Formats: sequence, structure tokens, C-alpha cells
Amino acid sequence: MSESLYVGVDLGGTAVKVGLCNANGDLLRTHEGPTQAAGGADAVLSNIATYVKELVPPGTPEWDNVAGVGIGIAGFLNIPEGIIDFSPNLPFKDVPVTRIMEEKIGKPVKINNDANVAALGEAWGGAGRNVANCVCYTLGTGVGGGIILNNRLIEGSTGMAGELGHLSIVADLEAIQCGCGKMGCLETVSSATGIIRMAVDAVERGDRTSLTFIEGEITAKDVIDAARDGDEVAQRIVSRAAFYLGKSMAAVAVVVNPQRFIVGGGVSKAGEFLFAQIREVFDKLTPGNARNGVEIVAAELGNNAGVVGAAGLFLRA
Amino acid sequence: MSESLYVGVDLGGTAVKVGLCNANGDLLRTHEGPTQAAGGADAVLSNIATYVKELVPPGTPEWDNVAGVGIGIAGFLNIPEGIIDFSPNLPFKDVPVTRIMEEKIGKPVKINNDANVAALGEAWGGAGRNVANCVCYTLGTGVGGGIILNNRLIEGSTGMAGELGHLSIVADLEAIQCGCGKMGCLETVSSATGIIRMAVDAVERGDRTSLTFIEGEITAKDVIDAARDGDEVAQRIVSRAAFYLGKSMAAVAVVVNPQRFIVGGGVSKAGEFLFAQIREVFDKLTPGNARNGVEIVAAELGNNAGVVGAAGLFLRA
Repeated sequence: MSESLYVGVDLGGTAVKVGLCNANGDLLRTHEGPTQAAGGADAVLSNIATYVKELVPPGTPEWDNVAGVGIGIAGFLNIPEGIIDFSPNLPFKDVPVTRIMEEKIGKPVKINNDANVAALGEAWGGAGRNVANCVCYTLGTGVGGGIILNNRLIEGSTGMAGELGHLSIVADLEAIQCGCGKMGCLETVSSATGIIRMAVDAVERGDRTSLTFIEGEITAKDVIDAARDGDEVAQRIVSRAAFYLGKSMAAVAVVVNPQRFIVGGGVSKAGEFLFAQIREVFDKLTPGNARNGVEIVAAELGNNAGVVGAAGLFLRA
Repeated sequence: MSESLYVGVDLGGTAVKVGLCNANGDLLRTHEGPTQAAGGADAVLSNIATYVKELVPPGTPEWDNVAGVGIGIAGFLNIPEGIIDFSPNLPFKDVPVTRIMEEKIGKPVKINNDANVAALGEAWGGAGRNVANCVCYTLGTGVGGGIILNNRLIEGSTGMAGELGHLSIVADLEAIQCGCGKMGCLETVSSATGIIRMAVDAVERGDRTSLTFIEGEITAKDVIDAARDGDEVAQRIVSRAAFYLGKSMAAVAVVVNPQRFIVGGGVSKAGEFLFAQIREVFDKLTPGNARNGVEIVAAELGNNAGVVGAAGLFLRA
């Protein structure tokens, strides 16, 4: 086979996942191993090299066809220079990852941040296949985002493009402070953390809700399950998360005008119950030309989005 | 000389302006003539061809160096196909402008809408020179916008990218309906029309303001002049226009993360009085990484932005 292949690396604090993709974004196979962060930066980078070579053994025809290795990393990166400035969960500080990994692997290497890479994965090999312009939301602890225009990930002037969780969007009277220091960011209501906070507030306020009887700490899944089961307080919380997601998409629609919004992360598992409400708000707040034909769909790749997107860095970033 | 040259055409309802640019975005000279819209589409297109050939006579070495002719048009366009679907001020309906003009001129032709083209002009040859990522606002009858990422104009999936006037941003309790049908669009407060509306409301409400003594219809310039002269009602109106502009830029900053915002159009003539307030709001509402080093500056090209941007369509779109 002579088709170019691409390796993607999802570098997490405890595990490293590696995957092999073809030029269409199909994930051919994956492999993984421990990060061993306690060993320091060089040990982590050596581990990555080992796992990549276990995934595709050097000397094989497949290895010869590998055009590059992309790595997705949580942290503050200097993307053009390939340096990890700082990472909260990894022993990296001012480490020139691209240069070191190119020496260890003997293939071109690119890095990018984990949220961008996951968005690129969905766009390239998941729910955004064959869509040139799409915007991805990841609803987890925070709200992450990534924007693909003309088939390419956009990064902006300081890598902050697609930081959709920090859209200042909640009405002033209801706004609370975000972890970033600003008031009313989208992720204060539409992340798992935001949903849990609203649920705890409701319980503490004494609202009549089944959430009062949850043993241990309330999770976002508890709230979503209660809403599906007809609990009105839980439904109001999920509706509020959906309202601001839809409103943020209306804003994004007149800025970059995507053809599709892709929503992933734990909260997106609420499914049609959540998506129907997001679509209703989006339709109400978006002008016709930016609204007609725009789809709001669930992400497809789950935990594989990171490796697929990292592999895609060579074609789409 | 062997440097490539580019012709830009700003097609208006009463006049056609044409200009010649070099590959750096420098405007070498302009020329203009009447549109003669009453003569129908073919007469208008023939006029454009005549003015282009008067600007750069065929047979000259300059003519040989012209790499293409770009045309900026107010209307609903099918940009990839080069067709004007409909134009409010011109006798065009489903006219394949690109094909017809290429026959008349013998050079490659591209079209794009006037707001995008003006933004591209500022980005390429005006206040955005040497800035890869910038966002342009035009504060006129409405609020127009255009976004340049990686030195290229973005259009989105249906040409609605950069429609910043239709960001749904005004707080619910103060929102009025926009011409587009939605509530609370940016242009209901930050355009000349929005400023005039707020001034007329204040006068009709009996607020103590010098605007009460304006003879004839109040203009946006009247309101800005009164604000500069210390009229508190006028100052509140301009502050409100500035507040929502700054708030919209905070949203745009976390979506596309530009390095510079460029503000043009009649209302921008309010100068530092307006800009200082926009910057204050932007700084308050934008996360550090998307805010630090970001400039908010006045447009430079004035009425020439359209011809410069149209010429730039061949390099930057």
C-alpha cells in the first residue's frame, strides 16, 4: 500500500493513547500505555515514542507510509514552535516537544491543544465528515470548543480561537463569576460543573425535586436522568443549559457561519432531550441565511476524537 | 515593470469606482464614472468594462500585468459561481456577472459582497496591514462586518460569516426588533440608525438635552457632536453604542481570536470619545489570553476600502 498514513497521540496525565489513521480520517487501530508522568518529561516522551513504534513497527511498509505524528496536549502551548510552555497535569515546562519527538521517532511531529485536536477529530473523521465549516462544543468539566473553516482548524492570533466556554452570554442579573475571572461565561451554566452547581443550589434552596434524595454528590448525569424522568426542577436546569448553548450558537453562526454544530462531552449524552431545546433556541435567535440548513448534531467519536484529530494535524491544521 | 497588478471595482447604485493596486495593497490610482443603472444589467457591465480600460489601457505593459479584476457588489450573491442573485439598488437578477465580465475584459474576474470587500481592503491595504487575523466593523446605516483569518477573508457556508450587526446581544429588557426580524441585534444600538432612534426617543420622552433644539431630522453626527460638547443624554446614547460594540468584540475574541479590530463607517468618526469606551468594555469582558495585545483602531481607507478590497480578492479570498 502506498497511501499516506498519520499517527495521532492523545497525551493524558495517566494514559497515552495512540492511533493510526488513513488520509480519509478512518481510524485503523489504536494502542495505549501508561504516561508515567512521575518519571519526568523525557520519560514521558520516550514512552510516547515506544507506543507509536508498537502501533506501527519501524521497517514495515506501513511505517514508511507514515507522513507524520500529531500530539494533542492539555496545557499552554507555543504551537508554531512546538513547545509546551506549561501543562497542569504533566511534568512539562518550556519543553521543545516537537524537536525532541522528531529525533526519537524520525518523522515530522506537530502539537496542538487537546480541545482543538478533539474538534478536528470530529470534523475530519466523525460527525463533521465532508463538512467544510463546522463548530464543535465539548460539554465536560468546562465547555471546550474548536472551529473548522474551509476544512482547517482555526487557532487565532494567540491560540484562543474557539474558546466558546468563555463567551460572556448569561444575562447580567443571573450571571455568576467563571473560573476565568469574568462574569457570565457560557461554561458557568452549560458545563457539567454548571449543571451540578445549579442542582446543588436548588436542593439547598429547598426546591421540590428528586435531586434532594441523591446519596453522595450530585452528578450531571443525575440531573439529566431526573429531567428525563419528569422532575421539573431538573428540567429547568437542563433547559437553562440548552438555552445558553443555543444562544451561543446563534452568535457563532453570524461570526463564522458554519454548516454544522457538533456537540460532544458527557453532558451531550442527555441526547434529544437536550438537542431539541438547543435547536429551538438557535432557530429563534439566528437570521435565516445563517440558520437554514444548519445542523446541530451529537459527536460520534467519543474518546477516540483526540487521536483522530491529532493524526489530522498534518492535513487539516 | 513585471509586478502583478490588480484592479478593484466598487459597484454602487449611482457611481462605479475603479482602482489599480499592486501586490502589496497600495492603491496606485482610481477612476470613476456613472453606473447608469436605468440602462439595465448589460449597460452597467459595459460601463464597468469601459472604466476599467480607461484606468488601465489595453495594450500597455501595465494591462499585461493585470492578474485579475475584483468587483464588490451590494446584494445577494452566489460567490463561487459569480452570479448576482438579486441586488436592491441595481438592475440585476440571476446575472452571471463573472462570465460576462471575463468576456468583456479578457481577464479573470471575481465578485464578493461590498461589506466583505471593504473589510478585506482595510485588512490588506489599510489599518490591518501586516496583521494576519483581524475583524472589521463598519458602523453606518447598519453594522457591517468582515473577518480575515490567516490573511484570508472568511465567508462561511452561506456567505454569512462576519455579519456582526446581527449578533443578538442587547439585554432582553432593552431589546427592540431589528430589521432582520430578530430581537436585540447589535445594529439596533450601534449603527447610525440605532443612535438616531435612541436620540429621537430621548427627545420625545422629554429628556433634558440639546438635541431637542436640532432643526430638521437628528443625525448620528448631531448626537456625537452633542456628546462631545458635554450633553449627558447624548453621552449616554454614545456610551450605549460603545458598550454593545465592546461586548460584541469580547464575543468575537473568543470565537476567532483576532489581533486587531478595525472600526470604520460614519459613526467611527466620533473618534477617541467612542474608542476609549469600546476598549474599556472589551478589556473588562475578554479573557486575558484573547485580550492582551489586541488593538481596537480606526479604519484608514475611508471610501477607498471598497476598491482596494475588490482588487485584493485575487490574493486574499
